[in-house]
Amino acid sequence: MEILIINGPNLNLLGKRESHIYGNQTFEDYLEALKSKFSFPIHYFQSNIEGEIIDQLQQTKATGIIINAGGYTHTSVAIRDCIAAIKTPVIEVHISNITAREEFRHTSLLSPVCVGCIFGFGMRSYELALKYFSELK
Amino acid sequence: MEILIINGPNLNLLGKRESHIYGNQTFEDYLEALKSKFSFPIHYFQSNIEGEIIDQLQQTKATGIIINAGGYTHTSVAIRDCIAAIKTPVIEVHISNITAREEFRHTSLLSPVCVGCIFGFGMRSYELALKYFSELK
Amino acid sequence: MEILIINGPNLNLLGKRESHIYGNQTFEDYLEALKSKFSFPIHYFQSNIEGEIIDQLQQTKATGIIINAGGYTHTSVAIRDCIAAIKTPVIEVHISNITAREEFRHTSLLSPVCVGCIFGFGMRSYELALKYFSELK
Amino acid sequence: MEILIINGPNLNLLGKRESHIYGNQTFEDYLEALKSKFSFPIHYFQSNIEGEIIDQLQQTKATGIIINAGGYTHTSVAIRDCIAAIKTPVIEVHISNITAREEFRHTSLLSPVCVGCIFGFGMRSYELALKYFSELK
Amino acid sequence: MEILIINGPNLNLLGKRESHIYGNQTFEDYLEALKSKFSFPIHYFQSNIEGEIIDQLQQTKATGIIINAGGYTHTSVAIRDCIAAIKTPVIEVHISNITAREEFRHTSLLSPVCVGCIFGFGMRSYELALKYFSELK
Amino acid sequence: MEILIINGPNLNLLGKRESHIYGNQTFEDYLEALKSKFSFPIHYFQSNIEGEIIDQLQQTKATGIIINAGGYTHTSVAIRDCIAAIKTPVIEVHISNITAREEFRHTSLLSPVCVGCIFGFGMRSYELALKYFSELK
Amino acid sequence: MEILIINGPNLNLLGKRESHIYGNQTFEDYLEALKSKFSFPIHYFQSNIEGEIIDQLQQTKATGIIINAGGYTHTSVAIRDCIAAIKTPVIEVHISNITAREEFRHTSLLSPVCVGCIFGFGMRSYELALKYFSELK
Amino acid sequence: MEILIINGPNLNLLGKRESHIYGNQTFEDYLEALKSKFSFPIHYFQSNIEGEIIDQLQQTKATGIIINAGGYTHTSVAIRDCIAAIKTPVIEVHISNITAREEFRHTSLLSPVCVGCIFGFGMRSYELALKYFSELK
Amino acid sequence: MEILIINGPNLNLLGKRESHIYGNQTFEDYLEALKSKFSFPIHYFQSNIEGEIIDQLQQTKATGIIINAGGYTHTSVAIRDCIAAIKTPVIEVHISNITAREEFRHTSLLSPVCVGCIFGFGMRSYELALKYFSELK
Amino acid sequence: MEILIINGPNLNLLGKRESHIYGNQTFEDYLEALKSKFSFPIHYFQSNIEGEIIDQLQQTKATGIIINAGGYTHTSVAIRDCIAAIKTPVIEVHISNITAREEFRHTSLLSPVCVGCIFGFGMRSYELALKYFSELK
Amino acid sequence: MEILIINGPNLNLLGKRESHIYGNQTFEDYLEALKSKFSFPIHYFQSNIEGEIIDQLQQTKATGIIINAGGYTHTSVAIRDCIAAIKTPVIEVHISNITAREEFRHTSLLSPVCVGCIFGFGMRSYELALKYFSELK
Amino acid sequence: MEILIINGPNLNLLGKRESHIYGNQTFEDYLEALKSKFSFPIHYFQSNIEGEIIDQLQQTKATGIIINAGGYTHTSVAIRDCIAAIKTPVIEVHISNITAREEFRHTSLLSPVCVGCIFGFGMRSYELALKYFSELK
Repeated sequence: MEILIINGPNLNLLGKRESHIYGNQTFEDYLEALKSKFSFPIHYFQSNIEGEIIDQLQQTKATGIIINAGGYTHTSVAIRDCIAAIKTPVIEVHISNITAREEFRHTSLLSPVCVGCIFGFGMRSYELALKYFSELK
Repeated sequence: MEILIINGPNLNLLGKRESHIYGNQTFEDYLEALKSKFSFPIHYFQSNIEGEIIDQLQQTKATGIIINAGGYTHTSVAIRDCIAAIKTPVIEVHISNITAREEFRHTSLLSPVCVGCIFGFGMRSYELALKYFSELK
Repeated sequence: MEILIINGPNLNLLGKRESHIYGNQTFEDYLEALKSKFSFPIHYFQSNIEGEIIDQLQQTKATGIIINAGGYTHTSVAIRDCIAAIKTPVIEVHISNITAREEFRHTSLLSPVCVGCIFGFGMRSYELALKYFSELK
Repeated sequence: MEILIINGPNLNLLGKRESHIYGNQTFEDYLEALKSKFSFPIHYFQSNIEGEIIDQLQQTKATGIIINAGGYTHTSVAIRDCIAAIKTPVIEVHISNITAREEFRHTSLLSPVCVGCIFGFGMRSYELALKYFSELK
Repeated sequence: MEILIINGPNLNLLGKRESHIYGNQTFEDYLEALKSKFSFPIHYFQSNIEGEIIDQLQQTKATGIIINAGGYTHTSVAIRDCIAAIKTPVIEVHISNITAREEFRHTSLLSPVCVGCIFGFGMRSYELALKYFSELK
Repeated sequence: MEILIINGPNLNLLGKRESHIYGNQTFEDYLEALKSKFSFPIHYFQSNIEGEIIDQLQQTKATGIIINAGGYTHTSVAIRDCIAAIKTPVIEVHISNITAREEFRHTSLLSPVCVGCIFGFGMRSYELALKYFSELK
Repeated sequence: MEILIINGPNLNLLGKRESHIYGNQTFEDYLEALKSKFSFPIHYFQSNIEGEIIDQLQQTKATGIIINAGGYTHTSVAIRDCIAAIKTPVIEVHISNITAREEFRHTSLLSPVCVGCIFGFGMRSYELALKYFSELK
Repeated sequence: MEILIINGPNLNLLGKRESHIYGNQTFEDYLEALKSKFSFPIHYFQSNIEGEIIDQLQQTKATGIIINAGGYTHTSVAIRDCIAAIKTPVIEVHISNITAREEFRHTSLLSPVCVGCIFGFGMRSYELALKYFSELK
Repeated sequence: MEILIINGPNLNLLGKRESHIYGNQTFEDYLEALKSKFSFPIHYFQSNIEGEIIDQLQQTKATGIIINAGGYTHTSVAIRDCIAAIKTPVIEVHISNITAREEFRHTSLLSPVCVGCIFGFGMRSYELALKYFSELK
Repeated sequence: MEILIINGPNLNLLGKRESHIYGNQTFEDYLEALKSKFSFPIHYFQSNIEGEIIDQLQQTKATGIIINAGGYTHTSVAIRDCIAAIKTPVIEVHISNITAREEFRHTSLLSPVCVGCIFGFGMRSYELALKYFSELK
Repeated sequence: MEILIINGPNLNLLGKRESHIYGNQTFEDYLEALKSKFSFPIHYFQSNIEGEIIDQLQQTKATGIIINAGGYTHTSVAIRDCIAAIKTPVIEVHISNITAREEFRHTSLLSPVCVGCIFGFGMRSYELALKYFSELK
Repeated sequence: MEILIINGPNLNLLGKRESHIYGNQTFEDYLEALKSKFSFPIHYFQSNIEGEIIDQLQQTKATGIIINAGGYTHTSVAIRDCIAAIKTPVIEVHISNITAREEFRHTSLLSPVCVGCIFGFGMRSYELALKYFSELK
């Protein structure tokens, strides 16, 4: 068991901007806390570039992937194709409840090719996904 | 902490019909297994009648609700209004990945008024929701 | 002259929840005040169950009906069919201005088969409908 | 061979209201005539409540079902799911030609999961469906 | 308390054309009857010109406005903007049940910025609106 | 009583192609079996040409028509106009359940001008239509 | 017989602007030529103001009206209502072929309430409409 | 000058069916009356077959064409392509006001490639088109 | 160089209503400040009447026009036609960022026929447009 | 190996009309040149009649078919059904780049049931299709 | 005061390709001219890569940003999210009048999160944006 | 003559993943075979990054380009703009028949600005495009 977390564009700003909304915790800090809760390796990759996310999805040796593709969630047929092509199971997560935001965020191009989707639980969405993987037989 | 799980129409058929898809485990059996994993009381209510689900949502004393509204997910403004009106936090779950099924299942009327949504993880979607509640401060 | 007021799902919560919006007056309290203003009998029925509302519409002996179908306003072809089938005139009322709320509340399936529609006047929407019936020749 | 006929909301008004359209014959009267034409048992269930129709669909021991879901035809994902989940073959019937009526009646959520559909033949739509079952090998 | 009634295009034809539908009473005649029922001044303005209606809305000193904008109901962003900008409360009325007429009459651009809407009660729609204002605290 | 069955484009391939779906029986063979079940004359016409079907509809002396217009079902305003113009009652049939196939097959231009519609019962759809005509008073 | 021609917004620019398209003839010049061809009086009214066109339609004593409503063709429910309310027959004309221009010009709100429509024949569209009136019995 | 009138599907029924709407005059009778009003030859072609209409459009030696394509008006890209390809000017006519009928009749695929369009004047629509051609310089 | 600024409906309310949003400065005051910044004459016209705006556009002798058509921006084909017909270059301005407001304000009918568009800069949108004209060669 | 080329409506005009676009070469001339490049027989069929094209598709003994269905490409469910029913592989070709033309030409009903599609290469589109067949193993 | 200009994909081709449209001036040349007009530093960044534009938006220390996102204007939720997240005010500019071009260019995903938008003024659109910043208090 | 083949995202997985669909041949292997069939140089570029594909399109010295943009086919206005801006002719190819796959793959943003399109012929789609270039005069 080895999990890769992929964060898409602007998620590197977590904890640095809009702290009145997201708090002061960066994803890197949260990640450390997460790692201490699970006994298997958790890798992390963030990029603002669509194609680099695809590269990462193709090359990873992880046995499970957790992706928060940020704005690419709603526009990237290319990431969707990649998730469909690789064998590794992928879980889609979002920090906010995307169905309660703007109309164009209600539809995810990625959901239909992922195992499942977890959104609306803040940073804890990642933990629930890890929980799922951790007990997978 | 006290959680109510509400299952909507046809979910009483789980484990009895279409067992090649859903296996032979009924929800009641699964529920027993679930209860043993958490230390707080977990109540269960199933109904095929939209209004009875609304009654239940209004009357429960639980501190958290997990709902799988089945077919009413996509048509019930009334259940949506109820979830919005009550103060108890509600998590929406689905056994299957609803975004990978028929077009009319892609939109949930309930999601925008729930805390968050977990779908695609089979019966384990319920467990992940319970996990979230169990660690809520 | 004998009027039946029918309230649909969640309207039993008036005055009990979201009191910062709707105040502390329950519909039952308001109804008492209403009754004192008109000289004919005013009956009241509330249900969260779509089919029970249909049963009531079919069985009533009232000479006029005032309906606030709540969430069923926007989804119930069955209630619409019932109003169209019975001979008793029906007035549709809403407490809030439904055209100023979410997109899915802008269209009422019931309006085209009702005599008319009154919405946006708070609890007083019911009174205006009664006023109309009271002076009907 | 044993057939269950299920009638949805407002179909209990047949022959009692709008007799200039539907005549003076109630469905119960028509049913008696129907039963005399076929040698197998024909059961009958009518309800205005969506969930009770689902209960009935789940519990019946009939070998074939004929359903006229009335207004629920166009809105009930829950009845659709139920028909898809049970093994008993279901035929959808309508008294009127629903494609020649209002726009919102042109689409049936139930048709895709039924064996077939018969509409526009008045009360005789039921008889044609029975005819089909009666000669099924 | 001082109310202004504004009628839009073609409402000057009431009682003069299509009398088989609307009867022989002109709005002016009806207005006289109305005035006798209420103790406060009721002013009246009719115009076929969109911009003149806006002028009137801007300049009135009335404490409440009742508007039947006729055909401009469905096309005038400019009247909508004006109603939103002024402080005087505005009630939208229609003589006929606009939801039971042509598709393009189902949506009113004005409703979302008015206090509420009353339609389908013939000339009496105006009276119900006055009734509302008359008891406003 | 004299019935004309009209089959549209590609229905001459029945029993010859895609026999794994439709079996090895041609429509001509089935027709012979059908004729033996009814005491009145049954005529048959098949064409791949839209205008020839219109010619036939205009010229027939039959007292009832059963049409399976194949692909023209979804595109021919001209056949629709013809059915509306002639006095002979027409029943629309389809072998398969067209609502369970591709989106563009869900809407029939012909249904609104036919007496009724029967689909999904295989070749037996024709027999049910004949059954209806045979007992028409 | 007495005909009123109504030209809407910007048609007063004919022959003065864009002469490479419309030539150098003003509508007034063309009107003189037209008048000499018919033995009955032909009146003419042009306005850029929607409400003034409505005023004119309401007040005219002509026995027939020819209208080219320019840009109001596609946006004016108020002019449409007026044409529907008055008894005088109205013919809609356009100089250009509006169906071969921008998408938003393809639909005329006025056509359904006019006797008929003539467009694409340049200035001669008016003459053909007059021709129709001139031979009306 | 030599004009060809082309009538599409079902127009051969004029005067024979639905005489309460269209009267008892066949198009052939009307044509004779028309011919006597104009000094140039007028040819006539009617067919229910789309491709034969295209053949005729391609082969005619007429200097002007008047087409009433009936139901093909709304569905035939092929006739449209043909009108666009040939050099002969074509006028589209309709007997009824197609914009006041069913939604699917509001759009003509042919209009954008014709010189102009005349509809709603009964049989006289043809005469107005001829009038236009007769004075063409 | 001579510029005409045209303001449409309700813009005469600037500085008088909703001052918490738009401040206390009227457009007339702002205009004085603007005039002092540019060396060429700046004329000003405001009207709530669509047709008067068209009249002004047609009659002006200005060498450049700046228009803020208010609510007519989204509904007036007639103003659009006028801008397209006249030779004077027109710049469209808006005080607010119309794309961040209600859906129906996102599309301007005028933009495609204007030179360009400037919006979102408050009153300064007018100044930027003047700046553009002032340096035009 | 034996190939049939089918051309639909108006393609018989190639080289005869609109020669400034398509040149002076008829399809027959081009066909002769094509035949000299391939060693297997190439048959040719052209018709303006939808049903005749279906007849040909059903009856051909060719091992491969190249179809340019002209205007029927966008409207013929019947030709689509035929291609799906027969076993012979079909390639769709177009002379022009249909995606760069009018909106209604962007969607082909035939493409999903053909092997593949080649368009935009002028007459050479046919040659590329033949090339594909010629090297098919 | 320090401004960053960001140009998106293909804007590096300005002055090098399609010079008959855009002239021979490269953006770099124009930039030099621009810099000489303003007293504060103006930085410039161009990239064809969506994610690099996001990187730049996140990292810049400028006090104002002017962005012409080229083709990403209409597709990039990720750039939109970034503009919304950072505090620096952003102005959207376009060289051409995007509302007068293809349909898919009419909607900008970026506009709603920018201060304002300036388009249609050629290269001078940038200058007007700088002018706005230069006088910002 | 010098051709550049550009493959977009995930096409580097050909022959490595989903081999039951695409076989075991990588594109690199296939390319070698291709090169041996043509006498001119064939260059190859693959990238998962949208902007790198644009860079390549701008910088190539090839006389013809063949592009399979993978998932960017349906979402990239930026690649479309680039193809439209450069002078080199571009052919769009796809391995599969994209019209027979998911709805969102039916529309290509690139097709309208390419010379033509070839899809559905497996790897041989590339060869047919090369064949076209090889005989271009």
